[in-house]
Amino acid sequence: MHSTTAHIEKLKAILYEIDALYTAASILTWDQETYMPAGGEEARARQLGTLERLAHDRFTGSEIGALIDSLAASENGLPPGSMDAALVTYVDREYRRLRQVPADRMAALVEHGAATYPVWARARERNDFQVVAPHLEKTLDLSRELAGYFSGFDHIADPLIDFEDPGMRVAEIRRIFADLRRELVPLVAEIAQRPQPDDRFLHRGYPIAEQEAFGLDIARMIGFDPQRNRQDLTLHPFMTRFSAGDVRITTRFLEHNFSEGFFSTLHETGHALYEMGIDQGLDGLPIAQGTSAGFHESQSRLWENLVGRGRDFWEFAYPLARERFPDPLGQVPVEEFYRAINIVRPSLIRTDADEVTYNLHVMIRFDLELQLLEGSLAVRDLPEAWRARYLADLGVAPEGDADGVLQDAHWFADWIGGAFQGYTLGNIISAQIYEGVLDEIPDLPGQIRTGEFQALREWLRSRIHRYGRIYSPAELLERVTGGGLDSEPLMRYLRRKYGELYGLG
Amino acid sequence: MHSTTAHIEKLKAILYEIDALYTAASILTWDQETYMPAGGEEARARQLGTLERLAHDRFTGSEIGALIDSLAASENGLPPGSMDAALVTYVDREYRRLRQVPADRMAALVEHGAATYPVWARARERNDFQVVAPHLEKTLDLSRELAGYFSGFDHIADPLIDFEDPGMRVAEIRRIFADLRRELVPLVAEIAQRPQPDDRFLHRGYPIAEQEAFGLDIARMIGFDPQRNRQDLTLHPFMTRFSAGDVRITTRFLEHNFSEGFFSTLHETGHALYEMGIDQGLDGLPIAQGTSAGFHESQSRLWENLVGRGRDFWEFAYPLARERFPDPLGQVPVEEFYRAINIVRPSLIRTDADEVTYNLHVMIRFDLELQLLEGSLAVRDLPEAWRARYLADLGVAPEGDADGVLQDAHWFADWIGGAFQGYTLGNIISAQIYEGVLDEIPDLPGQIRTGEFQALREWLRSRIHRYGRIYSPAELLERVTGGGLDSEPLMRYLRRKYGELYGLG
Repeated sequence: MHSTTAHIEKLKAILYEIDALYTAASILTWDQETYMPAGGEEARARQLGTLERLAHDRFTGSEIGALIDSLAASENGLPPGSMDAALVTYVDREYRRLRQVPADRMAALVEHGAATYPVWARARERNDFQVVAPHLEKTLDLSRELAGYFSGFDHIADPLIDFEDPGMRVAEIRRIFADLRRELVPLVAEIAQRPQPDDRFLHRGYPIAEQEAFGLDIARMIGFDPQRNRQDLTLHPFMTRFSAGDVRITTRFLEHNFSEGFFSTLHETGHALYEMGIDQGLDGLPIAQGTSAGFHESQSRLWENLVGRGRDFWEFAYPLARERFPDPLGQVPVEEFYRAINIVRPSLIRTDADEVTYNLHVMIRFDLELQLLEGSLAVRDLPEAWRARYLADLGVAPEGDADGVLQDAHWFADWIGGAFQGYTLGNIISAQIYEGVLDEIPDLPGQIRTGEFQALREWLRSRIHRYGRIYSPAELLERVTGGGLDSEPLMRYLRRKYGELYGLG
Repeated sequence: MHSTTAHIEKLKAILYEIDALYTAASILTWDQETYMPAGGEEARARQLGTLERLAHDRFTGSEIGALIDSLAASENGLPPGSMDAALVTYVDREYRRLRQVPADRMAALVEHGAATYPVWARARERNDFQVVAPHLEKTLDLSRELAGYFSGFDHIADPLIDFEDPGMRVAEIRRIFADLRRELVPLVAEIAQRPQPDDRFLHRGYPIAEQEAFGLDIARMIGFDPQRNRQDLTLHPFMTRFSAGDVRITTRFLEHNFSEGFFSTLHETGHALYEMGIDQGLDGLPIAQGTSAGFHESQSRLWENLVGRGRDFWEFAYPLARERFPDPLGQVPVEEFYRAINIVRPSLIRTDADEVTYNLHVMIRFDLELQLLEGSLAVRDLPEAWRARYLADLGVAPEGDADGVLQDAHWFADWIGGAFQGYTLGNIISAQIYEGVLDEIPDLPGQIRTGEFQALREWLRSRIHRYGRIYSPAELLERVTGGGLDSEPLMRYLRRKYGELYGLG
């Protein structure tokens, strides 16, 4: 027992060190994507590569290996179900997984991602994929190389997806996506036959400073805390955690698009609440993070959509919005506003898509990722493949690359493989969770109508957030919903909401 | 030869790693002092302590030791006077010096400094030294402990000063300061007898956004480059380098004080030009930094004072200032403005002091530091000792601690010992350098009158900046001025300028 305690303390001491390296890297990345002057690009990529190498080396080194072996063997010392037991299980798995990748190759991947991001930003500004295409070629090579370090996979993307959504595989995701697609496509077609509301007022002038203030006002009511959070501007919104008390979101605003900035703020606030809700005792350990991309998106999409795009929500929020934006909204009744922000219309930009078509955007990316990794699609043909798929699936196609293949930062900051399936998994999980929440807090719609979110936030914290990575995504889903992934609650929600909105049979 | 090349490459590879750790720490510190929410304080201090420990461990480890031993012995391989030879000499000295300090004690000092900074900020806001006094007690203990790791010093502050101004000792600084004081005190007294200009217009309303824009306009003319620099707001201005292409300054603005914000911007820009001027081939190596605090201040004070408080400078800059600030400056002739920004008047705040009394502020801090370290002054008595010395030396005393002992961040972010002498050494060196510049660029005053700074910047870059730490401070001073520290050029400059301004005999 004594040696177990000593070993677990030693393990934690090393993990805290590794956390300082990864956190430093997160801060350097946040800085790169918010404030860094262009002259810093080259050195920043090198710095991030070096931090990754040092952290990876330490995590996969013999010291952790020996501790894990000793701790996993001494079953006596760690109470089953305890946080320490979960930590050892998690670190054991990660240690065995990550040591298959040489530290300098992991560093090369991170350095290349950091070097590619600013080139992507320039390519996007110039609306020209070719500016960043050579970088993406190398990203694809490095992504395939990374997958190659893991033996025995069914699909080359499987080990890459496993980084983001542990336990998920291409075959299962394809099945889930196919089921969902079979339901979504006819729903989109049915809606397309119905008259559309007028949403032009959402594209009038919304002064950006006012958008920022309004977004933060609402975010604060939901749980954004200026003592523990901040929001900065960036090209592609993201959330990042530096410690239990320092969780940041970033966003972007467009003067002529109310929805993009506002719902992105809600979305990132949802991510932030997850990270802030993790038990503070886990701070500095690798289990102090959301358990998967899918679960993370379930939280962001829950606040963005199930709460934020609901009629109840705007009953309290719309008077505040009208005060902020008297010019575009003064003459618009709340019901008209509600219908406009929920207009279902195939469009080009994923982050600005409605709830019904959103998952089709995700599926396009997922399929293209797989084709790139399989070698059936060349990087140079990606913009054309993108356009073709958008035309086929959504009936619209981008004129330039900025509204097409360059719209999302993911492939240009990390690697190819695993970046997108989490969004749709998140939508599915969010609907599963929300059915449970409504069962247990029947008064929730009434609370939301008065801008009261504490019960919901506390439910999510106590059932999901607090555990960090103590449970695997599948275990956590089982605990929260009593079952596995099920897209039926999402489809029930969409059919009910949009059936009512569009008067569908 | 081949083994020397291999060893120097190996040495550099390790140094690049160490640089990534120290740079990450600099970015974390910059973030702490500009944007970090309060909730991040505790974890940030731990993160900084960990990064320091990892970097210190690596720098003082056996790997560098063996490489240095081999490289220092194989005199054949490295051409004398080459960059590589200078690097080995520098690393050899630093390795032997720093390995006297255990890594975890260095980490404790850094962690404590990072934990103290936000407490200092709160103490300053509450105008109450007692809020941070217990932290400063511990800082003093840790500072004395740090000094104790270095044996054979004459004064306990000597090894601490050596971190900032390598080669300087208390005895020599005391001699230099005494000489200077002997000249300054009568000059201040003489000026006090003369009529003072009216400078009330400098304390009218200067909108902060306009101050920021004006400061950046001028900084850009001097060499501030938005592609490689940025400016952010903070409590106590500083400059920080993240790479050759990413050098940042911070500043603060007061609406009713034109001088504080503007001259602080010039000051920090002077520091930034030094770091930007270092040969890019040195980037990522520990010699890619200014050679000493004194030399660094010689650059900041040169631009702030010798250039920025000169009549020539305002001949071109004043019309721009008037455009920005028509209300307070519209009716003020340039000569009146020039006299007001150079008013000599004992005051409370070092960073806002005139050129003549400024060094008296520095001497007060230097003496108090020594007394604290010697044990002849207790931390709890510091505010009273501060007030007494201000009354004795400057005839003014702060009412509260915010304008007294809490005004500078140094003791509350790093350690006690060595933080202040560099400012006065810098003033002395700046005047020595500037005499040389004027000899070699006789047309410089004319260039400044037209806002042309390239020749001056290039002179400083080619004679000083480019070398980083290739030369020790004493070597560099000898190369640039042909001699050692000499306060006579500073006194000549002050007597000439203020003799004319105040009509002294």
